[in-house]
Amino acid sequence: MSASPAFDEAFAARLDELLAWRRDVRRFRPEPLPEALVAHLLHLTDLSPSVGHSQPWRWVRVSDAEQRQAVRESFARCNAEALGDYEGEQAALYARLKLEGLREAPEQFAVFCDHATEQGHGLGRRSMPEMLDYSVVAAITQFWLAARARGVGVGWVSILEPEAVSAALGTPPEWKLIAWLCVGYPQEEHADPELVRHGWEVGRGRPSP
Amino acid sequence: MSASPAFDEAFAARLDELLAWRRDVRRFRPEPLPEALVAHLLHLTDLSPSVGHSQPWRWVRVSDAEQRQAVRESFARCNAEALGDYEGEQAALYARLKLEGLREAPEQFAVFCDHATEQGHGLGRRSMPEMLDYSVVAAITQFWLAARARGVGVGWVSILEPEAVSAALGTPPEWKLIAWLCVGYPQEEHADPELVRHGWEVGRGRPSP
Repeated sequence: MSASPAFDEAFAARLDELLAWRRDVRRFRPEPLPEALVAHLLHLTDLSPSVGHSQPWRWVRVSDAEQRQAVRESFARCNAEALGDYEGEQAALYARLKLEGLREAPEQFAVFCDHATEQGHGLGRRSMPEMLDYSVVAAITQFWLAARARGVGVGWVSILEPEAVSAALGTPPEWKLIAWLCVGYPQEEHADPELVRHGWEVGRGRPSP
Repeated sequence: MSASPAFDEAFAARLDELLAWRRDVRRFRPEPLPEALVAHLLHLTDLSPSVGHSQPWRWVRVSDAEQRQAVRESFARCNAEALGDYEGEQAALYARLKLEGLREAPEQFAVFCDHATEQGHGLGRRSMPEMLDYSVVAAITQFWLAARARGVGVGWVSILEPEAVSAALGTPPEWKLIAWLCVGYPQEEHADPELVRHGWEVGRGRPSP
């Protein structure tokens, strides 16, 4: 048995605040993050829970202008299709904010799940193979919170074609895209979700849940 | 723009400790959690990121002895199959610890993703529909950290047949099982993952990654 740290009530209360302020960020200031901070945040992801201790996350830091452009083009294609499903200004506004994140975020990461990893030897995912992907989502969630605790915002973009992202980056075919993350210092901060603030549910003619 | 809380370096350092001590727990003390704490932890999950603000997580607190027994039987079936893939004492030890969690944890939750939810109107998951499931994983990850900050341990069991769990609980067919969580005060705590401590990788004849 090891001695474990006690987390006091003050810390727990601050953690609750962090969870409330974790919100998805779309508008970023242009300055880059300190290199040591990026390294530290990525180091922390190795502490995330993973099925069978498989640690299947693969983080690709994307700085190349052409690669980023290819991803924005994929977003534009997906978004044009998606907008056909919606009406009104809210949808257009939301799409514009997302695109701004892809244009402006100083740091951008593609996060993959390595389906070819042998680490963990398949333990815990025979009856639920999707556990491998879930392990990557847990790592992204922890990255997000650790970043926010240092004033760094994260925006998760999913209006993308995974195969287009993989092609642009040249990643192995066994790597499944889980997320595209826009990362940087936020221009503004809110405790309420952007979609609630902009009336996404109400704007669709339904009461807000 | 709202005023946001600043999280100082001391908080960030404690958060790093929390991430390190978040480890999966399998051995629980029998006493139940305070009811207000359970309610608070579940309340916090509503702050989790979700695609299109869909909040698709459905938490089912399972106290019924027959339902729990059905889940242990599903575990036993899966585990018997899985053990055929492995050799040695490590696998048997690991399976025993998992089963102990299912027997002893005072609180147990089945966490589902509601694929029939209309909240969010499909936003952000047209090209990546798996985002809905990922939103539930993010909520579980935040629940896990919030619990650990209050000395509560969580163990995620995935050696289960999702359809058997759904049948035992009588959940709607549109609800997909994402996780079975064992929750309670841990008997002991470790900063290193259980599988590393028990030499899971080394025991398989490969160097530890």
